[in-house]
Amino acid sequence: MSFIKVDAMSDFPLHNLPYGIFSTPDNVKHRIGVAIGDQILDVSVIKFLFQGPVMSKHQDVFDQPTLNAFMALGHEAWTETRKTLQTLLSADGSVLRDDISLRSRAFVHQNAATMHLPADIGDYTDFYSSRDHATNVGIMFRGKENALMPNWLRLPVGYHGRASSVVVSGTPIRRPCGQMRPDHTQPPVFGSSKQLDIELEMAFFVGGETQLGQPIPINKTNEHIFGMVLMNDWSARDIQAWEYVPLGPFLGKNFGTTISPWVVPMEALLPFVEPNPTQDPVPLPYLQHSDPYTFNINLSVSLKGQGLANAATICESNFKYMYWTMKQQLAHHTVNGCNMRPGDLLASGTISGPDPESFGSMLELSWRASRSISLGGGETRTFLKDGDEVTITGYCQGDGYRVGFGTCKGTILPALQH
Amino acid sequence: MSFIKVDAMSDFPLHNLPYGIFSTPDNVKHRIGVAIGDQILDVSVIKFLFQGPVMSKHQDVFDQPTLNAFMALGHEAWTETRKTLQTLLSADGSVLRDDISLRSRAFVHQNAATMHLPADIGDYTDFYSSRDHATNVGIMFRGKENALMPNWLRLPVGYHGRASSVVVSGTPIRRPCGQMRPDHTQPPVFGSSKQLDIELEMAFFVGGETQLGQPIPINKTNEHIFGMVLMNDWSARDIQAWEYVPLGPFLGKNFGTTISPWVVPMEALLPFVEPNPTQDPVPLPYLQHSDPYTFNINLSVSLKGQGLANAATICESNFKYMYWTMKQQLAHHTVNGCNMRPGDLLASGTISGPDPESFGSMLELSWRASRSISLGGGETRTFLKDGDEVTITGYCQGDGYRVGFGTCKGTILPALQH
Repeated sequence: MSFIKVDAMSDFPLHNLPYGIFSTPDNVKHRIGVAIGDQILDVSVIKFLFQGPVMSKHQDVFDQPTLNAFMALGHEAWTETRKTLQTLLSADGSVLRDDISLRSRAFVHQNAATMHLPADIGDYTDFYSSRDHATNVGIMFRGKENALMPNWLRLPVGYHGRASSVVVSGTPIRRPCGQMRPDHTQPPVFGSSKQLDIELEMAFFVGGETQLGQPIPINKTNEHIFGMVLMNDWSARDIQAWEYVPLGPFLGKNFGTTISPWVVPMEALLPFVEPNPTQDPVPLPYLQHSDPYTFNINLSVSLKGQGLANAATICESNFKYMYWTMKQQLAHHTVNGCNMRPGDLLASGTISGPDPESFGSMLELSWRASRSISLGGGETRTFLKDGDEVTITGYCQGDGYRVGFGTCKGTILPALQH
Repeated sequence: MSFIKVDAMSDFPLHNLPYGIFSTPDNVKHRIGVAIGDQILDVSVIKFLFQGPVMSKHQDVFDQPTLNAFMALGHEAWTETRKTLQTLLSADGSVLRDDISLRSRAFVHQNAATMHLPADIGDYTDFYSSRDHATNVGIMFRGKENALMPNWLRLPVGYHGRASSVVVSGTPIRRPCGQMRPDHTQPPVFGSSKQLDIELEMAFFVGGETQLGQPIPINKTNEHIFGMVLMNDWSARDIQAWEYVPLGPFLGKNFGTTISPWVVPMEALLPFVEPNPTQDPVPLPYLQHSDPYTFNINLSVSLKGQGLANAATICESNFKYMYWTMKQQLAHHTVNGCNMRPGDLLASGTISGPDPESFGSMLELSWRASRSISLGGGETRTFLKDGDEVTITGYCQGDGYRVGFGTCKGTILPALQH
């Protein structure tokens, strides 16, 4: 229990303590905060209270405008910091609780803050690790017999995304224009995307740093996984379909990728770990780990059309549906010596479950526009309309509390005139 | 003519004036330099001499450890800076020439300097814009009838590369390990790459900055093209072949990409512009420009085996063989609203010409290992061996002078034991 009041349905109890970057109207400096209930603890104000053996020497990282320097310190620093924060914020801890003057400077109401990207993202990689999603897309485009490509069950397929267009929740997304070929008997045309889609994803931030040429063995990967966020990897299916052979998705994806602002530490998620999925065939040794690293995180996508009274839930999924674990993704990514920098972002790919309600994209929910997605009141969608507001939420359910991720939200602006 | 002695065969006469980042043993601070003959002009030392209307207000960018802030200033700032440098370094200019004390502090011999990456690279994109290269690869893997994919002649195909593993010339490259499937009747195996290759490329740095959602129209692209470097996009063909369907190259490429340290400004290359290639079919309007933006840059790749006395030239190509121009690449990349940041790097893809001697990869030079590449003295290669040193050079030939790019070099280290 914290001395800060936390509702049972709050995403941010003492069990969570996610990190984010915020500013306020009266102090526009970007600074590090920790969410607790409906408050933000301004870590820059209380940095002198981090007196543990590691953090007493590194209090300066809490003065930075991003989390990169803190992420760089590594696992031991994160554990010690979390322990200090739990002590400081607990109902029994007097240091902060009883210092009225410090408390008045150290806490900001979340409603009064503007959130920013948690880190400078050096590189953003997107995986493709949900078997149901890969199978659904495979069936739609290649038929049931060839749904999964031969490499899919052997390695976590992934590709490089665009770091510059990763934005924080709340940033509007402009409908992209581009080249597409809706009629395969005709030349391609230029126009605004008619098949604008969402992708329900989660992503993790990398901590620590590796040198070029040095892989991270799978039994060390946990030391480099800092924490997780929600992600919506907006996708223009018509642009993507025409461009992506043979080098992969490009302009169909890089016009915007939204993440939630609060980075939930892995330690807060460990109580919700589940057994890993059975992998058949057994992966090569560099991808093998026996400890569970699959997480029970309830995920939900809602869509609110412009002018509609209510948002409709269009998808309920779970992070546990992933086939490849984050440990496997990171070990694979670095096995060739590819270097990682603190703040690098590695995403899951669309998370679809076995049931149609759990499909994580409108492409799948509408089964390639062959059926409509109901928003209630007779309103339907196959792909996104201008003005649509999409919100992803996620949480782990504990006994009387939640460890949640806040929201990952974006609204579609009409395409530019061309 | 400069008051600094410049050999007729030097890459760096007064016509060139490329920018780079260097340090010296007695001053380890990374700082901005301009190459002239065999010297480096330390711009941080003479920043107060930039008195033009734009740069007098921005002398601080010359104190930075990267070129990003200077790149951000835009076209007008680059032109003015170049004019000032030409005046300062010309034989007629007295300000620097006659100030012995300042000269002693402002010049460093290139042999005494260590070069670094010219910029913090936010995002690195690799195109695939040489028709001969795309055709060669297409013939090898899909047959003559389907050599070019349907989209290739319609748009500059490209994909996102990895920014963290872009390194400066001279950095050793570790042979990567990874998953591959040499025998398609057997499961994949783990091991070191047996098909380690080069890719002869060039790349340009982006200047200025755009907001997410705002395209760069093709008639404004020149304001965002700062300058060019040589690039070797090392590739592990066996890793790439197994992983790349359907999301594109990943671990087969991201273990290392080498660039030359000196960024040659576009103004120095304009005298070597050539008519653009005829494009049939005519591209969509957003990709059309009539002004020539194809450059006659002689490119050469040499390979020196460990312990061999001499390097052998294995490829002579030219940047003018590109089908898509850099203007088209940049207009395409941003047409969907993808934002650009100063220091972003956009590469050409492998540059192959029509003749076998001009093929820009060992995959093509050895035609998929079906013939050997001679290094002289009976030594041959199909792909790279450990210890091989690969050097790319490039220059434009003027009347009695060259505008050159220096070297882009790397040596292969053996794979880590696994």
